[in-house]
Amino acid sequence: MPTEDTWKLNKSEVPELKEGEVLIQNHFISLDPAMRGWMNETRSYIPPIPLGDVMRAGSIGTVIQSKNPKYKEGTVLTGWGGVQQYIVTNGEGYYPVDTSLAPMPMYIGTLGMPGMTAYFGILEVGKIKEGDTVLVSGAAGAVGSVVGQIAKIKGCRVIGIAGGPEKCKYLTEELGFDGAIDYKNENIHAGIKQHCPKGIDVYFDNVGGEILDAALARLRMHARIVICGAISQYNNTTEIKGPSNYLSLLVNRATMQGMVVMDYAKNYREAAMQMGLWMMSGKLKSKEDIYDGIENFYPTFQRLFTGEKKGKLILKVIE
Amino acid sequence: MPTEDTWKLNKSEVPELKEGEVLIQNHFISLDPAMRGWMNETRSYIPPIPLGDVMRAGSIGTVIQSKNPKYKEGTVLTGWGGVQQYIVTNGEGYYPVDTSLAPMPMYIGTLGMPGMTAYFGILEVGKIKEGDTVLVSGAAGAVGSVVGQIAKIKGCRVIGIAGGPEKCKYLTEELGFDGAIDYKNENIHAGIKQHCPKGIDVYFDNVGGEILDAALARLRMHARIVICGAISQYNNTTEIKGPSNYLSLLVNRATMQGMVVMDYAKNYREAAMQMGLWMMSGKLKSKEDIYDGIENFYPTFQRLFTGEKKGKLILKVIE
Repeated sequence: MPTEDTWKLNKSEVPELKEGEVLIQNHFISLDPAMRGWMNETRSYIPPIPLGDVMRAGSIGTVIQSKNPKYKEGTVLTGWGGVQQYIVTNGEGYYPVDTSLAPMPMYIGTLGMPGMTAYFGILEVGKIKEGDTVLVSGAAGAVGSVVGQIAKIKGCRVIGIAGGPEKCKYLTEELGFDGAIDYKNENIHAGIKQHCPKGIDVYFDNVGGEILDAALARLRMHARIVICGAISQYNNTTEIKGPSNYLSLLVNRATMQGMVVMDYAKNYREAAMQMGLWMMSGKLKSKEDIYDGIENFYPTFQRLFTGEKKGKLILKVIE
Repeated sequence: MPTEDTWKLNKSEVPELKEGEVLIQNHFISLDPAMRGWMNETRSYIPPIPLGDVMRAGSIGTVIQSKNPKYKEGTVLTGWGGVQQYIVTNGEGYYPVDTSLAPMPMYIGTLGMPGMTAYFGILEVGKIKEGDTVLVSGAAGAVGSVVGQIAKIKGCRVIGIAGGPEKCKYLTEELGFDGAIDYKNENIHAGIKQHCPKGIDVYFDNVGGEILDAALARLRMHARIVICGAISQYNNTTEIKGPSNYLSLLVNRATMQGMVVMDYAKNYREAAMQMGLWMMSGKLKSKEDIYDGIENFYPTFQRLFTGEKKGKLILKVIE
């Protein structure tokens, strides 16, 4: 687990813009479990963050100076702005969003990376169909909550796994999940057996560890497991716990597949439109848990791993 | 590991045939790692063998008495005859084969379950394409040797993992593998790195354990892992070792999928024809290691796990 000393808050002058550059004033940054992975010096789906660099983060902000004809002052851009209040960029990797349709934080949450991850993960990798029993871990989180709601929209029976009675209540009473298992206070094996009596068709995994093993033990034939993350293992100081029940894949002719949202970039727009429509019709709910002040990055980041958050974790960094 | 006392050789009278039944004199039975799994009292792809029952085994033999118009005396039938010399059956689950085209042992080897497992596993689950780097464990075994040869036929670069220099030489010099790693005398990680410098597109796993983990560590993007077996784990008295590197599936958007050959039963005939053609043209070689005498079942069975065998392990059980 990173400590407070892992990051330092630095101040520096905003540089002069060169031709083609814009200056963005950052409003909000997204805090995601994946951040922890980017801090490991291992081959992964994106390069690790070099020591001394700005911490990587999804962001949304307003162009306040522009020498780029594509983006006028006032344009709202989202991209990988990092944990900082101002960004100078040529705009590559950023795209403009319409804040009259949805509030800014939503563009880095349900309409941003976490929402996209949920959308493509459960539809393209999980390949859900009507009547499937879908189990989601990290179900009250930014990704899991959208996974479950999309599965409900598609006619699945949806069970969520989350920590604590409050989050479980949120899943069943506010998000329409068919059931919830409180892994902090219930036996996970018994919970899965009770809520998925016929077994699991699709398991969407955000956590890894024992919960992944418990899900493997209850697969139905031709089940699909979507490997999206493994938050229970990210701060391990020992070897990662591999799923000892993986031979259930053989017995049940099941598939375990990893996914990274960036592979679906060319279809983000279509997905955002679909999710926007679901949100407007009340079928898809979005909840953001917003904290204030760039100086509070560390305590807010900690909430990712302690579970002390209610919805998508976002930090307001505007000066 | 089962002991000699696990089985008992019983003698009993051959019963009178009822209408619709045939009496088969068993010639050969197939010895396969899967047998070990059938002895565990756990939910699996077929029911466990009840205590006191005849040990399950693939078999081939000749009809010597018949009250079933479908099968005349002299017909050669293959099916799940078990570890016994005579079988009384209504013929369900058996099918006739033409022993003028291939010798009997081949019908329970390369043209039987192990060959079918290899064929459908590498083509349908592994989805190999020309130019892929294919890694196979248990490569000198009945399944692995066919997997590798089919992958060569399809234009892949094929590396096999086997125990001992003799088996490795067999892979490269007789079966045309591009490389072989001797897991008993070489470092498996270094071997994979050397032989698969660009990584692995398809890993066909018969062994599980550390070799599966080593393969996971060298996956290419969109790699496929076929989970066919896990012989290194079958006699574990402790928990099965799950693959700690499974998050490589995420990083590389890779898939790990289990398979059971019986799912492809309706296409066996087509596969056997294709493999027969490859054998006749010398592209697919088959090697049987045949032992003699039903009373030698136990020492022959042990060879599955000690690796002391050269090709498909078969026991001649005819009186």
